[in-house]
Amino acid sequence: MVKRRKWLLGALALIMSTSLFFTGCETYKVASKTIQVNTFEGKKNPKYVFLFIGDGMALPQINSAEIYLANQKDNKSPSIQKLNFTQFPSQGMATTYAADTFITDSASAGTAIATGHKTNDGVINMDPAKKEKYTSMAELAKKKGMKVGVVSSVSIDHATPAVFYAHNESRNNYYDISLELSKSNFDYFAGGGLKQPTGKDKDKPDAYAEAEKNGYKVVKDKASFEKLDSKSGKVFAVSPKLDADKALPFAINKDKETITLADFTKKGIDLLENEKGFFMMVEGGKVDWAGHANDAASSIHETIDFDGAVKEAIDFYNKHPDDTLIVTTADHETGGFTIGFAGTGYSTFFKRIANQNISYDEFTKKVEEYKKAGHTPDNAKLEDLLPLIKEQYGLEAMDTAKYNELYKIASDEKNAGAKEAEEKIAMALSPKDLEDLMAALKQSMLDKKDRAADEQSKLLYGGYDPLTMALTHIMDHKAGIGFTTYSHTGIPVPVFAKGIGEEMFEGYYDNTDLFEKLTSIMGVS
Amino acid sequence: MVKRRKWLLGALALIMSTSLFFTGCETYKVASKTIQVNTFEGKKNPKYVFLFIGDGMALPQINSAEIYLANQKDNKSPSIQKLNFTQFPSQGMATTYAADTFITDSASAGTAIATGHKTNDGVINMDPAKKEKYTSMAELAKKKGMKVGVVSSVSIDHATPAVFYAHNESRNNYYDISLELSKSNFDYFAGGGLKQPTGKDKDKPDAYAEAEKNGYKVVKDKASFEKLDSKSGKVFAVSPKLDADKALPFAINKDKETITLADFTKKGIDLLENEKGFFMMVEGGKVDWAGHANDAASSIHETIDFDGAVKEAIDFYNKHPDDTLIVTTADHETGGFTIGFAGTGYSTFFKRIANQNISYDEFTKKVEEYKKAGHTPDNAKLEDLLPLIKEQYGLEAMDTAKYNELYKIASDEKNAGAKEAEEKIAMALSPKDLEDLMAALKQSMLDKKDRAADEQSKLLYGGYDPLTMALTHIMDHKAGIGFTTYSHTGIPVPVFAKGIGEEMFEGYYDNTDLFEKLTSIMGVS
Repeated sequence: MVKRRKWLLGALALIMSTSLFFTGCETYKVASKTIQVNTFEGKKNPKYVFLFIGDGMALPQINSAEIYLANQKDNKSPSIQKLNFTQFPSQGMATTYAADTFITDSASAGTAIATGHKTNDGVINMDPAKKEKYTSMAELAKKKGMKVGVVSSVSIDHATPAVFYAHNESRNNYYDISLELSKSNFDYFAGGGLKQPTGKDKDKPDAYAEAEKNGYKVVKDKASFEKLDSKSGKVFAVSPKLDADKALPFAINKDKETITLADFTKKGIDLLENEKGFFMMVEGGKVDWAGHANDAASSIHETIDFDGAVKEAIDFYNKHPDDTLIVTTADHETGGFTIGFAGTGYSTFFKRIANQNISYDEFTKKVEEYKKAGHTPDNAKLEDLLPLIKEQYGLEAMDTAKYNELYKIASDEKNAGAKEAEEKIAMALSPKDLEDLMAALKQSMLDKKDRAADEQSKLLYGGYDPLTMALTHIMDHKAGIGFTTYSHTGIPVPVFAKGIGEEMFEGYYDNTDLFEKLTSIMGVS
Repeated sequence: MVKRRKWLLGALALIMSTSLFFTGCETYKVASKTIQVNTFEGKKNPKYVFLFIGDGMALPQINSAEIYLANQKDNKSPSIQKLNFTQFPSQGMATTYAADTFITDSASAGTAIATGHKTNDGVINMDPAKKEKYTSMAELAKKKGMKVGVVSSVSIDHATPAVFYAHNESRNNYYDISLELSKSNFDYFAGGGLKQPTGKDKDKPDAYAEAEKNGYKVVKDKASFEKLDSKSGKVFAVSPKLDADKALPFAINKDKETITLADFTKKGIDLLENEKGFFMMVEGGKVDWAGHANDAASSIHETIDFDGAVKEAIDFYNKHPDDTLIVTTADHETGGFTIGFAGTGYSTFFKRIANQNISYDEFTKKVEEYKKAGHTPDNAKLEDLLPLIKEQYGLEAMDTAKYNELYKIASDEKNAGAKEAEEKIAMALSPKDLEDLMAALKQSMLDKKDRAADEQSKLLYGGYDPLTMALTHIMDHKAGIGFTTYSHTGIPVPVFAKGIGEEMFEGYYDNTDLFEKLTSIMGVS
């Protein structure tokens, strides 16, 4: 309570000193009554509130997707094609640090957004001492009588969805988290599955069955999913196609069997719409995973796919413009993604990204198959894999002498043939690339525990499959994209808002403020 | 004209479809009359307009300075100390691409901001075909009768200051640009000097003398600078201390002889204040230079120094809140700076940055002195330079066995002594660091033309002094900071605004829109 009052006073001071009226009249210094706007008191709360979280999706990820989209149109001069959510009328920036580190994880960042409290990395809605449980905005919305949906492209017991319904000292206690899901009484869970439905040791009662016991209709196939409607009651819908971590497949793989994040969002709207309104959180969870793996192509496709889910909310907004708020943000940045690489200087080649048609995890499976076929560091040959590399990344080996000749021409700005030469080696593997790939292949043919563990290997492969990482970095650099880490970074994230209360998301604030703003707008604080 | 009308229609469409009233009254959908607000028609134009441009200063640079400031206070949990300009009430984001590249240079980005036109990299206020000359917002302000000031911490003929007064097919034609300065009739030029006052071949009439001929009082010493007042007429004030590129020294070096950017800004206010108002552009030019050299410490100090100049404008604003607008932005990001590095994962150690007390260029001078003393790749010894490295970066060599033992403990999370061990090797040079420094030292002892020119060297040193770069990267990584390039990057930049018209800077737009917004607010379009 004290905390909230402080916040109100702070808002009052800020508004009185600086804000302006938007009325177009002669005097536009703010009068004290505008406090009503910034605390959202005295206004009609929006009935329908969407919170979209792109995990690991900061400005570089967003802007890269926009550059990629414009480039696919064969534009002759640089331009961007804005995503749906970057066209929202209000924008802000939020700092993301945790209680214990500047570089947050998804658990502490999610807790900050969902409950307004900073906590330590790894903790789900509890204080750093792991004693007090915090209440999430989704729980407050439910208490007010709104329906609540939680949707994610990764497993629904993962940190970001979990912070809306669970409270646990560790994000890794997946089973306990899934039990909280089943007891949450929320109206709609959808997307990925459960990571440990029968516990760490597979000796616990099935969490899906627990959900059913608690009144959930559990749906795991497309036909049943399509039949769901507003009379279906509480629903827990899982994609028929999941990866090893119970997440939807990466969008870049264009898997036909999956239900997309946009589909899950649209269905959520159908199931949740009611007179008392709804709150729906939708997470695009694999922008983060692509960032960890430094896989720019997968990141871009994932961001565009996530934007497709936001589009569903915009379509709904257009039918209910006086009752809807949509907020899109990220919990943190992942990978230290930037649009610029030392080797390519001021140039970028986003078109080259279109040559990649597989995510890092799917390619790793193929490398593992090659290993399982009896290949070792001694007998593995890069030549064996070159056709596959060509097919999936568009990268081709080239005769060393020829490559070097073309590279020399391409590097000489004064040479009239520079552009043509550059085009010829655009997707060619340089002698250095081939050397790196061969070294990586040898490492890939070892069991994980036998691979080099020195600092250099850590920097090169970050614990991922070495050959896949070598290829991923070559693709990034071909496009003019750089990464600095396999973890998250500490840079602030953007916030985009459209609808009732949108103006409250402008400014540069902390991620905990998102809780204050959203609960104030929903009238649930 | 057609372009402007399109923009108005676009603004109209956007406002009619999405914006809200800020009045706290019952209905807050926007009526068509609010267009007046967003085009700034029918309102009183602010008399005093400041445009601060942090060259190469995007979110990572800004947020790093804020983390550094909070860390110097020995905070126990992560927090930031906001800069002055990040506390401005309105924020937005701007894309930065040029007419010919996604990654812009300062000339094309500056032209976009100053004139509203995209052009090619390297071009100062002309179209890509280099035929048409564009008019800058500073020229428009002057035409309206406002006084105009152009201030920079780098040479005043550099791209960013030049776009406010000059028009040239190349930013490198410094002499021609300086002649345009002398003929501009602007009221105040200040900061760095001229790069080629007598032309490329030193055979032209002195450009300082040309400025005097055109009525400028040219001031190059501190005493004369301090005496300048509103009766001094047109002024061209240059810092008594300049580096080899005619720029102010880096703030990190704490040079006592220089006049600071804040001093130049404050003096500008004194000289320019008048009944018809003023427009002043102030550039923090060396955030960019530090970014190019991947020197995080110098970047942070430079950003804080730049913020000190903004503070002068805020002090002025507080005296004239109804007549002032301050906008702070960047032209682009430089270096691919991020808060996160593969080797440090989720950890950051910003305190370690405080150990560095020299900029990369000043340290390079010391390496050159060592070389000039007769050292070669064969006889140069890292041991000779270790005391200097300790003094300037706080980095110390450590016995290999001891380092490895401590590193092992520090890397083992379960070890109770991990934190203590980490502290002991915080500023220690690892065996790998020492190896890298020795290899770099050998390269530094060669003449530039004889140094390795392969791809790996390009990535490691980016054309800078090898030993300095090796140290700079070690310092970055010690702090948990990564860079991806020695050039600029293509990510969007933030915009911060305070004062009359501030609300127009909210949103996600293009850098050319900054011209439209500022000229509309100043009433000079």
